[in-house]
Amino acid sequence: MSDQSVAFTRLRMTDCKGDGEAVKSPMELYEKLSEQGDKVRTLKSAKAEKAEVDAAIQLLLKLKMDYKQLTGQEYKPGCPPSENSAENGSVADDCDDEVNPWNVTTSNAKGVDYDKLIVRFGTSKVDQELVDRIERVSGQKPHHFLRRGIFFSHRDMHQVLDAYEKKKSFFLYTGRGPSSQAMHVGHLIPFIFTKWLQDVFDIPLVVQLTDDEKYLWKDLTLEQCHQFAVENAKDIIACGFDINKTFIFSDLDYMGASPEFYRNVVKVEKHVTFNQVKGIFGFTDSDCIGKISFPAIQAAPSFSNSFPHIFGDKKDIQCLIPCAIDQDPYFRMTRDVAPRLGYPKPALLLSTFFPALQGAQTKMSASDANSSIFLTDTAKQIKNKINKYAFSGGKDTVEEHRKYGGNVDVDVSFMYLSFFLEDDEQLEKIRQDYTSGALLTGELKKILIETLQPLIAKHQEQRKQITDETVKQFMTPRPLNFKL
Amino acid sequence: MSDQSVAFTRLRMTDCKGDGEAVKSPMELYEKLSEQGDKVRTLKSAKAEKAEVDAAIQLLLKLKMDYKQLTGQEYKPGCPPSENSAENGSVADDCDDEVNPWNVTTSNAKGVDYDKLIVRFGTSKVDQELVDRIERVSGQKPHHFLRRGIFFSHRDMHQVLDAYEKKKSFFLYTGRGPSSQAMHVGHLIPFIFTKWLQDVFDIPLVVQLTDDEKYLWKDLTLEQCHQFAVENAKDIIACGFDINKTFIFSDLDYMGASPEFYRNVVKVEKHVTFNQVKGIFGFTDSDCIGKISFPAIQAAPSFSNSFPHIFGDKKDIQCLIPCAIDQDPYFRMTRDVAPRLGYPKPALLLSTFFPALQGAQTKMSASDANSSIFLTDTAKQIKNKINKYAFSGGKDTVEEHRKYGGNVDVDVSFMYLSFFLEDDEQLEKIRQDYTSGALLTGELKKILIETLQPLIAKHQEQRKQITDETVKQFMTPRPLNFKL
Repeated sequence: MSDQSVAFTRLRMTDCKGDGEAVKSPMELYEKLSEQGDKVRTLKSAKAEKAEVDAAIQLLLKLKMDYKQLTGQEYKPGCPPSENSAENGSVADDCDDEVNPWNVTTSNAKGVDYDKLIVRFGTSKVDQELVDRIERVSGQKPHHFLRRGIFFSHRDMHQVLDAYEKKKSFFLYTGRGPSSQAMHVGHLIPFIFTKWLQDVFDIPLVVQLTDDEKYLWKDLTLEQCHQFAVENAKDIIACGFDINKTFIFSDLDYMGASPEFYRNVVKVEKHVTFNQVKGIFGFTDSDCIGKISFPAIQAAPSFSNSFPHIFGDKKDIQCLIPCAIDQDPYFRMTRDVAPRLGYPKPALLLSTFFPALQGAQTKMSASDANSSIFLTDTAKQIKNKINKYAFSGGKDTVEEHRKYGGNVDVDVSFMYLSFFLEDDEQLEKIRQDYTSGALLTGELKKILIETLQPLIAKHQEQRKQITDETVKQFMTPRPLNFKL
Repeated sequence: MSDQSVAFTRLRMTDCKGDGEAVKSPMELYEKLSEQGDKVRTLKSAKAEKAEVDAAIQLLLKLKMDYKQLTGQEYKPGCPPSENSAENGSVADDCDDEVNPWNVTTSNAKGVDYDKLIVRFGTSKVDQELVDRIERVSGQKPHHFLRRGIFFSHRDMHQVLDAYEKKKSFFLYTGRGPSSQAMHVGHLIPFIFTKWLQDVFDIPLVVQLTDDEKYLWKDLTLEQCHQFAVENAKDIIACGFDINKTFIFSDLDYMGASPEFYRNVVKVEKHVTFNQVKGIFGFTDSDCIGKISFPAIQAAPSFSNSFPHIFGDKKDIQCLIPCAIDQDPYFRMTRDVAPRLGYPKPALLLSTFFPALQGAQTKMSASDANSSIFLTDTAKQIKNKINKYAFSGGKDTVEEHRKYGGNVDVDVSFMYLSFFLEDDEQLEKIRQDYTSGALLTGELKKILIETLQPLIAKHQEQRKQITDETVKQFMTPRPLNFKL
């Protein structure tokens, strides 16, 4: 993963694009083109005045030229810009990263190019200045996910901190799609970080389990998805969330328990067209109507009045969403809609992906047992999987390795350590030793195994202590204990 | 309205199409074509084997030929069959009726051609045999809406009666879109008939108020739509429904009060594609995602387990939906989905439209005060509106009228009497006298005024007696009192 290379040498902040009007991403331009195409057709079929039709066509042509220039591709209706479109005017590009809520792949062994993703998605970089500021405002040493660029990008974090400094607090929202009983270590990343945020800022948290989404996307029954949601809730609770400040909900339960939540869903649904979700998510006419409207359901928890038991009828409490960057499309849409509903835009803290054992070309997947280390794996399974599958950046022979050294940029064991080994100095020493060849692949894997085994054993121990009663409490709509 | 002419001379039953696989409507064929086109594109882009692609193209061409033959039009992707397509192979057709949930218009002063609509929608005719059977099974004289062909079409009524005769009961489901505070007399038609069905069959009823739909379609706030729902509920209750057998619900309330209802909504959403709703409802890419998924919300009350407080977890209780035929597209879709969810298809009893005062070219509309007689109109307003606006089938001068007679087929006053004057003999005499010229237009209007004034006064009296407490009771999810 390319972000590993920046783990200890913070990059300077580059010029960041917000999501304002001025600079358009290919997706935004594509959406605008789709809309303009529709407009021209509507005008023509309504036999509008020639001048009006001509003006609409002129704008359409102008947009098509802009699109060609931005992406190097011709605009084709129904075909959103492909992921290998170049953002900066250059036509050819070797990047073929695909990043959306349902797929993350790249041909690059270092993983997705996150700097390009920042440009493509129009987010901002988490730079040293922001990390320092979080330290100042929270009074705590920044989490190593922040120090090492794992949460590498954001939207509006400065605004959240501005308000926090003026004693105006915020709430956290994150989530999980419960597609199976088994969660893997990669799934923990947003929750570990969210717990840290909850602790240092002392704020309420809502966790959405999108069992309805998994039913719509997977070959599963509603009952299975709901059961997975409850099981996953146990793993989430085991991360140590404060029961007095945390509400975890299944969509299938909460939609039927909160008219206020449904009202926000319908409000979002009214303000987003099929053209827009087609452009943002790549939906097609053959997709079911449940998928097409689902983004509104993931958007709604961004608004505080979706939770009257927590926030009463307050609709202006800022939301901060820590999540992996593949979820950003949902919240780009949400941020677009929010002002039209009279709600603040949610802020975001976006993480890199947790790579599969086989390499950073794709993220860890719960559906491939050998690509992941599960939270239910035994110490022996962890050891075997890492030894057998973890892609190595080492050389073919010990002699060569000693001579030329290993490559931490593609080594999965090192990547995992950067997620889970908290000691910066120790990690830096491992990096140097592996790069120089002093540390062999087997030795590196041993360090990872000895890091993960106790961590997962502890998780299992904590999970075991969570009763059904505790889960029920976390999942019951109720007042939370906090000051705003 | 053409059905007026069949009011007293029951038509023989023509061959009726069901909605089975054998005979396809243009809409169904259009949908199938859209899907097949997608399939061909998918195969091509996936570089499937030539034989497979060729077979898919062959089927596509065959479907296109079928479509041309059925509609007289070329198939065009994205353009559902227009309403003036001929159904039976004839290319030209003078019918330009538009009938969908949001618009009903025709150029014919007699109103929509309902016989053609039966063919186009693939429903069955309510023939004398069915009317007689309802009389036999219920032991009651059929309601004049049945006797006069106002509820002129159905789906699966014989199946409902077969089961009822074997002591297997059913439940009723009807609804209203609360787009304004003011309901007009036309809105009462399904409710008057539903009350009759509830009484004679002694069965439970659910009434859906689609306040979410109105929010999505109209320039109204959620609060306004919900307020209209509660106000409309009063007019519905005033029709005399049994509080022990009737549950009235606002979508905005009930979605947030019943996980079971939401589960059925999501189930339907999973089994219907955008292609399908595009074909059925004419949605476009510029429509908001709320509209696109709304049909699932109108479908869900067709399934008994959407109401666990009434039916427990029973999912096999047959549903009968009395409604105007413009709502049929929703339930065509519902019937298509039901077997795939393991639910019985809802049966339907479909009515003609209640014409505007200005003539049967369109139905009465709540948004045009002069096209409608409102349930809040005073006796004087009723009199003035009828005298001023009710389209007359009479001749220009009294002399001509006496000589040539009037035309009841286009006379709105006569049409209204066929809805509201219960005495068959009196109505037949009016028909004869007006047709012969013995009865003048002013005299006919006077009869209508004297029929409607006490009817609406009585409704207003009944509505006045309905307290907020009563409305709340009707709208509270609770067990109902019935035997199945």
